[in-house]
Amino acid sequence: MTPEQSVPGCGSRADVRREQILAAAEACFRTHGFHGASMSKLCAQAGMSPGHVYHYFESKEAIIEGIVRRKADAILARVEATRNAPNVLDATLERAGEGIADKLDPDFAALELEIVSEACRNPRVARIVRDSDHEVLSNFTELVLGLRRDLGHEDSKETLDALVDMIAILFDGITVRGIRHPEMDRERVVALFEKTLRFLIVEWR
Amino acid sequence: MTPEQSVPGCGSRADVRREQILAAAEACFRTHGFHGASMSKLCAQAGMSPGHVYHYFESKEAIIEGIVRRKADAILARVEATRNAPNVLDATLERAGEGIADKLDPDFAALELEIVSEACRNPRVARIVRDSDHEVLSNFTELVLGLRRDLGHEDSKETLDALVDMIAILFDGITVRGIRHPEMDRERVVALFEKTLRFLIVEWR
Repeated sequence: MTPEQSVPGCGSRADVRREQILAAAEACFRTHGFHGASMSKLCAQAGMSPGHVYHYFESKEAIIEGIVRRKADAILARVEATRNAPNVLDATLERAGEGIADKLDPDFAALELEIVSEACRNPRVARIVRDSDHEVLSNFTELVLGLRRDLGHEDSKETLDALVDMIAILFDGITVRGIRHPEMDRERVVALFEKTLRFLIVEWR
Repeated sequence: MTPEQSVPGCGSRADVRREQILAAAEACFRTHGFHGASMSKLCAQAGMSPGHVYHYFESKEAIIEGIVRRKADAILARVEATRNAPNVLDATLERAGEGIADKLDPDFAALELEIVSEACRNPRVARIVRDSDHEVLSNFTELVLGLRRDLGHEDSKETLDALVDMIAILFDGITVRGIRHPEMDRERVVALFEKTLRFLIVEWR
């Protein structure tokens, strides 16, 4: 069977291998950081030879690209499901709760922060992070635009963009907060987070 | 002159050396990350021998502790000045703007994120980050408590703690946002940030 032949129920074998490498890389980056995660550690974690890993990803940056792609796809799927819900506002607030839960997971946060941190010094990773952010936010902007219009708000493009950045600040912030203050009262903070989100989407003018 | 003798206008020579090491370490951590910043790189940057650096800081974690201490002192000074202002609410919002400007500075953000990222995998750094967060937030809570009381809100301790964590989420978030989306319309986003802060402190009940 060639690498590209499909395994029933699992996509092609190449897809399975890629997923295996990305999962191993995620674990390595979390534990050792991007720089501490040598290709040899990564190969050991994935149970593959370097040649095999390099066949799928030419560099650690390409692996980061794959990880960021997966994260973006998960958010885009959530936004898509929200847009198709019977009550889009309720669905937005409800799915925001799911997003928050992800971001408060220490493993999720560790990987997220490691990638953003690497983006501060590695222009290629910065490009990957920024392109992905742009894609996700463009998509989310459509959702917010629809919600605001239905609520009678008439926003300029500039206002809407700032609003979406502000909402993104909430989600970016909770990742960091969970690390700085893991003992916080999550239930109360999440309830207040949702009220703040509601203020921004519904009330703010 | 011994290391502890004072240099006029500069504190003791030991203080000057410590500051010199912390500034060199900040630059190294930003550029190379905590793990990539070897003691030898750090010594070269500081222009000191390893023996000299170790005389002041026993480890890289001790240096992180010094950096985090300096950052906390800067915030505490800002909170203190705010509490003593004639109009505390206006001063809070105004000084928040200064805090935002710091956090949007790419060098500031790079160091901040590197430290939080390291806290995800290094228990000693996690302890330093959490203790400092606790100190800063306790102080800020007093400020918010006074403001909310003056505005007629009667908050339980739990409500106030969640509110302060939510405000901290805004500040944590803007650091990350500046990296993910450096081209954002800062003026509009900062204006909306301040409105969100006002909503939380003044209106929310």
